[in-house]
Amino acid sequence: MENLSSTALLCKSAKAAVNKISAIGDKKINAALFEMANAIEASRDSILAANEIDIERAQGVISEVMIDRLRLTKERISSMADGIRAIAALPSPLGITLEEKTRPNGLVIEKISVPMGVIAIIYESRPNVTSDAAALSLKSGNVCILRGGKEAYNSSLAIVTAMKSGLKKVGITEDAINLVSDTTRASATELMRASGYVDLLIPRGGAGLIRACVENSTVPCLETGTGICHVYVDKDADIQKALSIIENAKTSRPSVCNAAEVCLVDKQIAESFLPLLKETLVDKRAAEGKTPVCLKLCEESIKIIDGERACSEDFDTEFLDYILAVKVVHSADEAIEHIASHSTHHSEAIITENKETAKKFVSSVDSAAVYINASTRFTDGGEFGLGCEMGISTQKMHARGPLGIRELTTYKYVITGDGQIR
Amino acid sequence: MENLSSTALLCKSAKAAVNKISAIGDKKINAALFEMANAIEASRDSILAANEIDIERAQGVISEVMIDRLRLTKERISSMADGIRAIAALPSPLGITLEEKTRPNGLVIEKISVPMGVIAIIYESRPNVTSDAAALSLKSGNVCILRGGKEAYNSSLAIVTAMKSGLKKVGITEDAINLVSDTTRASATELMRASGYVDLLIPRGGAGLIRACVENSTVPCLETGTGICHVYVDKDADIQKALSIIENAKTSRPSVCNAAEVCLVDKQIAESFLPLLKETLVDKRAAEGKTPVCLKLCEESIKIIDGERACSEDFDTEFLDYILAVKVVHSADEAIEHIASHSTHHSEAIITENKETAKKFVSSVDSAAVYINASTRFTDGGEFGLGCEMGISTQKMHARGPLGIRELTTYKYVITGDGQIR
Repeated sequence: MENLSSTALLCKSAKAAVNKISAIGDKKINAALFEMANAIEASRDSILAANEIDIERAQGVISEVMIDRLRLTKERISSMADGIRAIAALPSPLGITLEEKTRPNGLVIEKISVPMGVIAIIYESRPNVTSDAAALSLKSGNVCILRGGKEAYNSSLAIVTAMKSGLKKVGITEDAINLVSDTTRASATELMRASGYVDLLIPRGGAGLIRACVENSTVPCLETGTGICHVYVDKDADIQKALSIIENAKTSRPSVCNAAEVCLVDKQIAESFLPLLKETLVDKRAAEGKTPVCLKLCEESIKIIDGERACSEDFDTEFLDYILAVKVVHSADEAIEHIASHSTHHSEAIITENKETAKKFVSSVDSAAVYINASTRFTDGGEFGLGCEMGISTQKMHARGPLGIRELTTYKYVITGDGQIR
Repeated sequence: MENLSSTALLCKSAKAAVNKISAIGDKKINAALFEMANAIEASRDSILAANEIDIERAQGVISEVMIDRLRLTKERISSMADGIRAIAALPSPLGITLEEKTRPNGLVIEKISVPMGVIAIIYESRPNVTSDAAALSLKSGNVCILRGGKEAYNSSLAIVTAMKSGLKKVGITEDAINLVSDTTRASATELMRASGYVDLLIPRGGAGLIRACVENSTVPCLETGTGICHVYVDKDADIQKALSIIENAKTSRPSVCNAAEVCLVDKQIAESFLPLLKETLVDKRAAEGKTPVCLKLCEESIKIIDGERACSEDFDTEFLDYILAVKVVHSADEAIEHIASHSTHHSEAIITENKETAKKFVSSVDSAAVYINASTRFTDGGEFGLGCEMGISTQKMHARGPLGIRELTTYKYVITGDGQIR
């Protein structure tokens, strides 16, 4: 941090802001969140104008899909503001006595939830992450450093400017929300190595960004991640449930991390089930004018239904598309083993009416979320009742699954004595 | 991991062992722990003989203090075995439903405590860490990879051999406990980068080791740490409590991380308090034949009592010795600011009878353990009622303070549905 780049200066002022917001209390935080939401709506025109600049510059530089993610509309701005208000409505995760005990020597030991301090979020082109991340950080008592993608910089700056004016209205330091102005790779690397300034780093984005953070970070980093999610159709499955869950898990939103990528089918039902799977995902969808799913079939399944022959990489690919790899397994154990070797530990589901098999599956599968007879698409902060989220953790340290406000806190031990010595 | 060094092979077999021990249950784990303890006692002679080889090789290579830490005796071996039995007696941290809720759509979401998987521990020369770390890992359902210091290798190998025979007796795979045979730096680096094999890395040792892990790890790493612990004597302190707590915090075991290194004294009582501090820590101890404490005094305190003049580094040094830096501060706020700039976020104490000041101090000081009127020496798994510990975390992610068995677990979401789709 010696050369004092703009990012280093930001880290310093963020760190200094931690104490200024540490004792403001949930009431004032919520007041600030409402003012931030109002300010975003009041600044709608300037935010849209800034977004227009970003969109123009991005034309021909990034894909149409990415440009769509980048684009703001009146509705999207309102929904950003509503998202902030929804976060304000959540109960505070701070100051909760997680445990309390009195030791034989009379010491009272309390374990109390507290903010992390400074949270840095490195993300890509969606401007709504700017408001979500800032609001989640503030609600959990944290100062945030936002490092968005360069394509969205003008949009993010306009949103942050509005949010800062909201903070100012209730007398909270504007340094509680910080936007990195340097959008080159240098600033991301600087944040990854800002030991002593950044208490928690959360990368949100593609596999390349996550890998760069894991490789280069010296600050504690919460890996959010890719999802190669599996649905295993057991021999004791209810076939209608299986078909509806797989169609939902695969096609309701193929581009997200909780979409299913692989279907494992028990050999005992493969002959009857696979033709129905093809009918549901391919033929029926085509007939209804929906995008049919491209099935990538293992050696055994291709003998039963038509489709592309899967290559081995297909079972290690997050397609994020209307593509499903299909594999016949000879037992629940083989399904569990396949998942152990190929899963990214995000979400997996078993479809079965057999309680014993279900129990074995959930105890053996090592993923953040393991489902019995439900779609993997439910792995989401909102669906879990946590409010909006900072991402889905696929590592096991600190937090697993959806990162809500509680997952942005830590704890401290407060020990009250009367002169005790050891 | 491509070249398959001995360490890489160990990582592979450790990973493969995770599923083998995932469902054995607390009863069998405890049976194994008792057999491990018994086997260590039964192997006393071979462990002592192995330790003798380590001691001989270490003569003249490492300091006398380190050789003392390395040395095993009959008593130390019994206390290792008793430590394992004490861990067996703890309630299991596994399979606990941390939360359960039913969503409006009927999905039942349970959050259940589960093992981390593979825990790697890199430590230095104390052989008892070998048995503690293995027992804590097994009790919490984890496979461990132990990478001890080269000075203690023969001792560790003899201890691990005994523990493996204990595992075998109850039919648990011996791969649940793994000792790295390569004690060069290469194996430590390999563990730090064993993504996909090591779920959690815990370095236990000096600042150099911790820094190397933080710098080089790509696997999640729990920073344990150095302790520059502060005791602040407020203007409203009970002087007798202050003197007894400081003497205890400084001198009861100066070489450990929860010992106090800095005493901050409020200016309003400095003139009366500092002479008593000197009397307690220096004059009286010398008269009683105890090691007197060397006081490193700030500009203001050196006007009041005799002692060495402190240089600025003295307030950023973990002395681990009979040395105490002393600084006069003008208010509780200045004490809090000093701690914010110089603490390692381990343990700090305030001595005061003023509840408001105490409240402010504990809410503002950002350390794992914050004490009111008690010695910092209590930051310890045993003293906190957690059983023995894997170290003291000074970071904020995952776990803070003493790392007991619960801190070696993570959780998974188990979601039970009846065909729900999103």
